[in-house]
Amino acid sequence: MTTLSPTPRSTVRRGKERARSDRADLHAVLDAGLVCHLGVVLDGAPLVLPTCYGRDGDTLYLHGSTGAATLRAAVASPVCVSVTLLDGIVYGRSVFHHSVNYRSAVVHGQARLLDDDDEKLRGLRSFTEHVAPGSWSHARQPNRKELASTAILALDLAEASVKIRSGPPKDEDDDVAGDVAWAGVLPLRTAWGAPEPCPLLGPRHATIPAHVTERPDPA
Amino acid sequence: MTTLSPTPRSTVRRGKERARSDRADLHAVLDAGLVCHLGVVLDGAPLVLPTCYGRDGDTLYLHGSTGAATLRAAVASPVCVSVTLLDGIVYGRSVFHHSVNYRSAVVHGQARLLDDDDEKLRGLRSFTEHVAPGSWSHARQPNRKELASTAILALDLAEASVKIRSGPPKDEDDDVAGDVAWAGVLPLRTAWGAPEPCPLLGPRHATIPAHVTERPDPA
Repeated sequence: MTTLSPTPRSTVRRGKERARSDRADLHAVLDAGLVCHLGVVLDGAPLVLPTCYGRDGDTLYLHGSTGAATLRAAVASPVCVSVTLLDGIVYGRSVFHHSVNYRSAVVHGQARLLDDDDEKLRGLRSFTEHVAPGSWSHARQPNRKELASTAILALDLAEASVKIRSGPPKDEDDDVAGDVAWAGVLPLRTAWGAPEPCPLLGPRHATIPAHVTERPDPA
Repeated sequence: MTTLSPTPRSTVRRGKERARSDRADLHAVLDAGLVCHLGVVLDGAPLVLPTCYGRDGDTLYLHGSTGAATLRAAVASPVCVSVTLLDGIVYGRSVFHHSVNYRSAVVHGQARLLDDDDEKLRGLRSFTEHVAPGSWSHARQPNRKELASTAILALDLAEASVKIRSGPPKDEDDDVAGDVAWAGVLPLRTAWGAPEPCPLLGPRHATIPAHVTERPDPA
């Protein structure tokens, strides 16, 4: 399935012209993001917490401690996962037409708690390689005890929507003709700073490895 | 009230050592963020959408179209607003101790839809000055029709939690002693790029104003 087939709750209702229906757009937003916001319903109220994630094909992997109430709630009821990339501030000629440029993915579904160790390792690998590409082979991999204390959730990407805004402000014709204010976009860039080695590093790993020094800036 | 008094749902249960109880920390995270994730319960399922916001004292202002289903749901039931700043990737010596440095604020409450025009303007001003400082006085302010079509929500910051992680990885003693891998932090920086003027700009506003060119980078 290469297109997103909207369900009632994944249908974009506001700003329809910003909606994308290509599955590749969904993958691109998820791959570019680093943190998602996981929404669950806990005691009838929404709870939205930031967390990291990984993607493998059309599966999103989330993780947490086996003891976390959010994780239990995430398995017991539907979840919503939102990934947002802010690309810039849109300065309109009017306050009303101020906006932001962004890429947004929203996924709805029922998360599944993995219990098979092989599948957990696959999920954890995808998760780790998303947060820190290269670390799965460089760092010590999880032992039995660590794997047991880590809960991995899998969420199918079947029900999702993508919205993207880019470009200059869309002002009222009167405001453009009247030249009433400056208008344009102030882009926001993200980039990695200089790596800060752990003060306790030993001699064998005194050199910062290439998967850290050469990590591409977030897109 | 200068401290955050935890309620059952705003009590930090995981990673308690990262919790902050000072209200100034809450304000600082909210002021540094640009986008929040608003969680509502819609037809029994969570819905998490990104949106901009403003803060005035202990009130958070959100806005949207008067026609949006999310806005209606946000007024009809409790909401959760989450603001997250990702400060860096924490590379541990083990996959298990990989983490991220971040600042996170989570606010719970019942949003209130403003109906008084003066209060709406106050909220919209706070919102605008958060997204684009200087724009309230530079750009054309909302007319009666624009104000009527804009829904402004106010959310009290009474029930909130703040979590902050910073510093190097916390690895197992055995992994540190064994010097098993490189460890450290790769900081993430955000900065404004060069402003991109609207192609339709008139001669009166050909120069990019100082509130845009001198906008401080996000903290």
